[in-house]
Amino acid sequence: MTDGKGGAARAAYARAGVDVAAGDHAVELLRARIATAGATGTDLLGGLGGFGAALEVPVGYTRPVLVSATDGVGTKTEIARRMRRLDTIGQDLVAMCVDDLVCHGAQPFFFLDYLAVGRLVPADVAALVGGIADGCALAGCALVGGETAEHPGVMEPDAFDLAGFAVGIVERDRLLDARAAQPGDVVVGLASSGFHANGYSLIRRALADEPLDGAFRALVARVLGEGVAGALSAADAAATTGEVLLRPTRIHAPIVLGVRAALDVQAGTGRGLTGVAHITGGGLPGNLPRAIGPELGVRVDPATWPVPPEMGVVAALAGLADGELRATFNAGIGMALVLDPAAVDAALAWLDSAGALAWRIGAVEPVGPGGARYREAAA
Amino acid sequence: MTDGKGGAARAAYARAGVDVAAGDHAVELLRARIATAGATGTDLLGGLGGFGAALEVPVGYTRPVLVSATDGVGTKTEIARRMRRLDTIGQDLVAMCVDDLVCHGAQPFFFLDYLAVGRLVPADVAALVGGIADGCALAGCALVGGETAEHPGVMEPDAFDLAGFAVGIVERDRLLDARAAQPGDVVVGLASSGFHANGYSLIRRALADEPLDGAFRALVARVLGEGVAGALSAADAAATTGEVLLRPTRIHAPIVLGVRAALDVQAGTGRGLTGVAHITGGGLPGNLPRAIGPELGVRVDPATWPVPPEMGVVAALAGLADGELRATFNAGIGMALVLDPAAVDAALAWLDSAGALAWRIGAVEPVGPGGARYREAAA
Repeated sequence: MTDGKGGAARAAYARAGVDVAAGDHAVELLRARIATAGATGTDLLGGLGGFGAALEVPVGYTRPVLVSATDGVGTKTEIARRMRRLDTIGQDLVAMCVDDLVCHGAQPFFFLDYLAVGRLVPADVAALVGGIADGCALAGCALVGGETAEHPGVMEPDAFDLAGFAVGIVERDRLLDARAAQPGDVVVGLASSGFHANGYSLIRRALADEPLDGAFRALVARVLGEGVAGALSAADAAATTGEVLLRPTRIHAPIVLGVRAALDVQAGTGRGLTGVAHITGGGLPGNLPRAIGPELGVRVDPATWPVPPEMGVVAALAGLADGELRATFNAGIGMALVLDPAAVDAALAWLDSAGALAWRIGAVEPVGPGGARYREAAA
Repeated sequence: MTDGKGGAARAAYARAGVDVAAGDHAVELLRARIATAGATGTDLLGGLGGFGAALEVPVGYTRPVLVSATDGVGTKTEIARRMRRLDTIGQDLVAMCVDDLVCHGAQPFFFLDYLAVGRLVPADVAALVGGIADGCALAGCALVGGETAEHPGVMEPDAFDLAGFAVGIVERDRLLDARAAQPGDVVVGLASSGFHANGYSLIRRALADEPLDGAFRALVARVLGEGVAGALSAADAAATTGEVLLRPTRIHAPIVLGVRAALDVQAGTGRGLTGVAHITGGGLPGNLPRAIGPELGVRVDPATWPVPPEMGVVAALAGLADGELRATFNAGIGMALVLDPAAVDAALAWLDSAGALAWRIGAVEPVGPGGARYREAAA
């Protein structure tokens, strides 16, 4: 929590360009949001305003394991800054962190944020932290604290950076172990909501000459042709380029935990869910092998799912071949599940009933002759 | 952990100014450090390279409570950058976080860092993360992960920002509760190592015209007089101004936990340690009241301990009165302990034997007529 500062210090800080009163106001605004964001059923011990946040480990665990992850949102912040739209990127931050936790089978438990700003504007901080609180509510975890740091003279006044820290919890014998995967296991991909929060330095460079308030449909028509533009979803066809680029990262954690729990109680699903990969920087080749043991590889058929049109646009403008696109962006797959073949039909049925778009995109196999742990080929 | 990226993506990223190969090299360097930094006796489950870090809650707790805190080091980063000395500020980061945890009685358990850089230079990242690993070793916690984010075009190439995230653990009935303090309890201050990592925007502004490689003794003589300069410690007298400003934050966590444990097993120490305040932004007036119940106040006698000379210099150049100095900087007190009067002699003896400089600086009292919860007066 940003510390309160006394009246004398306010005057001293104001001389150095640090607006402590604005900081205090921002903190009040965030606290109002944070108090509503707990969703884990565990009370914050001692309330807000302590030096740290205290939460009891929930009862019912025999050997609780804590899984932790930290991430930022890269320079997607620049898109938010240029669009003056600060209330959605908090969801990206939560997604980047909690979707790492569920790769280990952990339930998101609590979250803290770090926000660095050039100049502290209370309404802006409230919008950013409000988005984080909304993301935590979607992920089912508690936003228990954070730090807002003002860096006058070091960052541009309206520049900001966000980092998130998430802790999840899982019973030790429920920890997902990459060594559980076997050759023949099936890879199911869950649809991403777009670029998520990876690759934005490249994206911004490729689209440097494109106005963010221009029609996305027109950009697609110019770069990929009228045929692709005509097949856009209604949402894409009506959006500006900036709106497509700023679309928040889908939070997959509840879906992943939900499908695992459903498979566990359903007969005939074999080993059920054996691994999960969060598809971030490095794309499918960089992340999918992390969900399986080191002696295994994975084969993916890129024809089995559609690449989002904004990725096609950036790839075309940046001169990326298809394989480069899939090694750079998520290519439309936000999370990948590794499943016992006996569990695939049940998993796809559950995902469909939950409204989650998913495709059977590949399979686990022994490592090939060249030692490659990822290859692309038709089934 | 910075994600690995495939060869095709490297080429694409290189075009956008993101040096993925440099990133991978940096990650290897950090992993070598991280592997040596675990000090909690709990193994990292699944090893490094997973999506998150998994640690089992240590055995022996009946109702384990997790205490979490996040903080940065403010614009002390600018001093490090200008001095090209990157291997110590990691200790500041760890100190800012773990010394919040011990205010609740929690043992630091694990730590994650977030590092944002303009351009990723492996040796620089290794120096920064190496300092964090050193700080974690001092604090007795495990450095289990982190994120290194490169922000080309958004941050200056050699600019960086650091955020830390610490989780501690404490048995529920051992959680320090500010309501345990009573009128008459004694406040003992533990010496800070200087500015720690607060107030650097003001410090940098006050010292904007002073060369960092100038002799600190000469600066003190000019601003505070030859008498003060002649009384400097040997370390201060031999240091440059930059070296004094960059001096790492003392990590008090082991000392605080140690004195509490010692008082608990010693007869006749009453309620022992009843509260702890980490003195950060806002100084003593902003932080000391947080260690006692809301119906109590605290009286501090500023004549009972010495203010570090660098704070006198900055206060003089910035035109801060003594009261303003104490509401802005830690004024020489890095942590404050609230103690049952019966425990004070034993605590001071233990601290002395542990080599920790400490002073009896004040006492707890009922809130005064004006509602002020902090006042300064001679005992």
